[in-house]
Amino acid sequence: MPGKPKKACIVGSGNWGSAIAKIVGNNAARLPQFDDHVTMYVYEEMINGKKLTEIINETHENVKYLPGHKLPSNVVAVPDVVEAAKEADILIFVVPHQFIRTLCSTLLGKIKPTAIALSLIKGFDQAEGGGIELISHIIKRQLKIECAVLMGANLAGEVADEKFCETTIGCKDSRMKPVLRDLIQTEYFRVVVVDDEDAVEVCGALKNIVACGAGFVDGLNLGDNTKAAVIRLGLMEMIKFVDLFYPGSKLSTFFESCGVADLITTCYGGRNRRICEAFVRTGKSIKELEDELLNGQKLQGPYTAEEVNFMLKTKNMEDKFPLFTAIFLICTGKIDAKELINCIKNHPEHM
Amino acid sequence: MPGKPKKACIVGSGNWGSAIAKIVGNNAARLPQFDDHVTMYVYEEMINGKKLTEIINETHENVKYLPGHKLPSNVVAVPDVVEAAKEADILIFVVPHQFIRTLCSTLLGKIKPTAIALSLIKGFDQAEGGGIELISHIIKRQLKIECAVLMGANLAGEVADEKFCETTIGCKDSRMKPVLRDLIQTEYFRVVVVDDEDAVEVCGALKNIVACGAGFVDGLNLGDNTKAAVIRLGLMEMIKFVDLFYPGSKLSTFFESCGVADLITTCYGGRNRRICEAFVRTGKSIKELEDELLNGQKLQGPYTAEEVNFMLKTKNMEDKFPLFTAIFLICTGKIDAKELINCIKNHPEHM
Repeated sequence: MPGKPKKACIVGSGNWGSAIAKIVGNNAARLPQFDDHVTMYVYEEMINGKKLTEIINETHENVKYLPGHKLPSNVVAVPDVVEAAKEADILIFVVPHQFIRTLCSTLLGKIKPTAIALSLIKGFDQAEGGGIELISHIIKRQLKIECAVLMGANLAGEVADEKFCETTIGCKDSRMKPVLRDLIQTEYFRVVVVDDEDAVEVCGALKNIVACGAGFVDGLNLGDNTKAAVIRLGLMEMIKFVDLFYPGSKLSTFFESCGVADLITTCYGGRNRRICEAFVRTGKSIKELEDELLNGQKLQGPYTAEEVNFMLKTKNMEDKFPLFTAIFLICTGKIDAKELINCIKNHPEHM
Repeated sequence: MPGKPKKACIVGSGNWGSAIAKIVGNNAARLPQFDDHVTMYVYEEMINGKKLTEIINETHENVKYLPGHKLPSNVVAVPDVVEAAKEADILIFVVPHQFIRTLCSTLLGKIKPTAIALSLIKGFDQAEGGGIELISHIIKRQLKIECAVLMGANLAGEVADEKFCETTIGCKDSRMKPVLRDLIQTEYFRVVVVDDEDAVEVCGALKNIVACGAGFVDGLNLGDNTKAAVIRLGLMEMIKFVDLFYPGSKLSTFFESCGVADLITTCYGGRNRRICEAFVRTGKSIKELEDELLNGQKLQGPYTAEEVNFMLKTKNMEDKFPLFTAIFLICTGKIDAKELINCIKNHPEHM
């Protein structure tokens, strides 16, 4: 029973937001179940004396965050998030995680009560008192709507280049599943939908801890065998962590793009690996390297390792997660990176 | 109830055989349940006018296959395989797979009937009429003894360097498990024992097919997302192949070192990846590249792809394994490497 075509709004317009706008715009134009008109909330900035929203709406290019790629002309940049979101049936959140609470406060009561959300936001927020709070949980709680997540081995530039890849949507609600899949899937961007929303999102955060371990191994020149072992033990701790704090997930979810594929890409490329390699080679602190190499931006891996450690401590489970624990201790300068292997060689996986 | 100390024999003395001899020799000397004396069958060759076995027994170094590493002095090189094996309780097979049938014929009736075997042999043999025959099955059938397998992300040189890594032993027999683990595990070489013998061994063969796909992706400059997708789809086809031809394995086995870890290492390093990248970049055939770059040695991946394709054809299942099938077709020149993505973009995983 086909209803009214559904309207999509992309909340965010960075690198990843713009790449996904290209996909969503094309699918909305192509498929009858969606309204052609797609709004994209763009945080207004001036580029050479001209508003970014105007540039996007005139040239169909996000010259600041995704230069060199045309957006479909049915994607319309809107500088006011309430204006962009108010008629949307599907809200796609893709902003830096630190903005999500304020954004949700702004949107509360201004969106359709029947709207559904899809979060592409990497990382997590700190829960009150410490530990991880999932972004999708914040969206659900603050906006009182359903929220699925999308994660995978998806470097934005390559997605924008239409290079073949896979992604994972974690979505419990069976009515939402086909809607989200149809809106996102293309010939080159292949979607697998699984039930385990929380596991999909947690993978996207925990992989950055493991990437720090991979970076240490690279910095210590420990070789391919050790790197493979650290990545695998990291995956095992990811699985155990999800089982402990977000129970009920399927093992098969970790074989999806959000799991093993994203983990591999992050541990071979990616800046967490790179900075942690430099950490070992230069002897500088993570803070110094963030200032030097990331313009002071926070590196996700060490930050996640700290919050995860907080959670493990509250359950007295640090010794069951020796890799996560060692990475936390190394990042905070409490032990030397050379101790990494000593910390994991009596891993519970080997008992 | 401690019995007589068990004797170990290493059948083979290449790079990997010598690295494992170092481990087994040290453990046999250290642990009371093993006899100190470990024999190592060495195919005799002359090195600068001197027998290799004599060099090894005098200098405790396999100067040809693992130069620069001392073997424990309790490892004794023996040029006659029957002599080396006749008193052994544990036979560790680590020879090139093409020699296994002849070796087993030579050993039949000459070994202890109570002996157990552990195969470290990578690859597989062609079954009569085509398809894969597992090396451990050949050993079991020909020698009428139990045979476990050991596979993992274990580059021999790094193991010899005592760099930390993990390995997987596939062993059904619960009495054999602790014996093999104790003989193999060290502080730096960590063992996980699982029941799924066949799955462990099949992973070691199938990973090379996937590595060919990774090499094509590299040669075609398709980027990190696509490579991650191809590796993941390869893993999914490995799981499905095992389920189809060697049913009853656990999903968790694919998370062991023999599964995801060895696959990663092979798809980022490894010669199957490298030669298949060159295949795309140079336009030369696999045969030409084998002649040029491998002194005419056969590359495992394309050969495995062919035998696997034979098996899939007999079950009319080629379309359920689009990646394996595409890699076979590309390696044999039946389709262009550029077709790889077209072949997998409607993968059953995405349906």
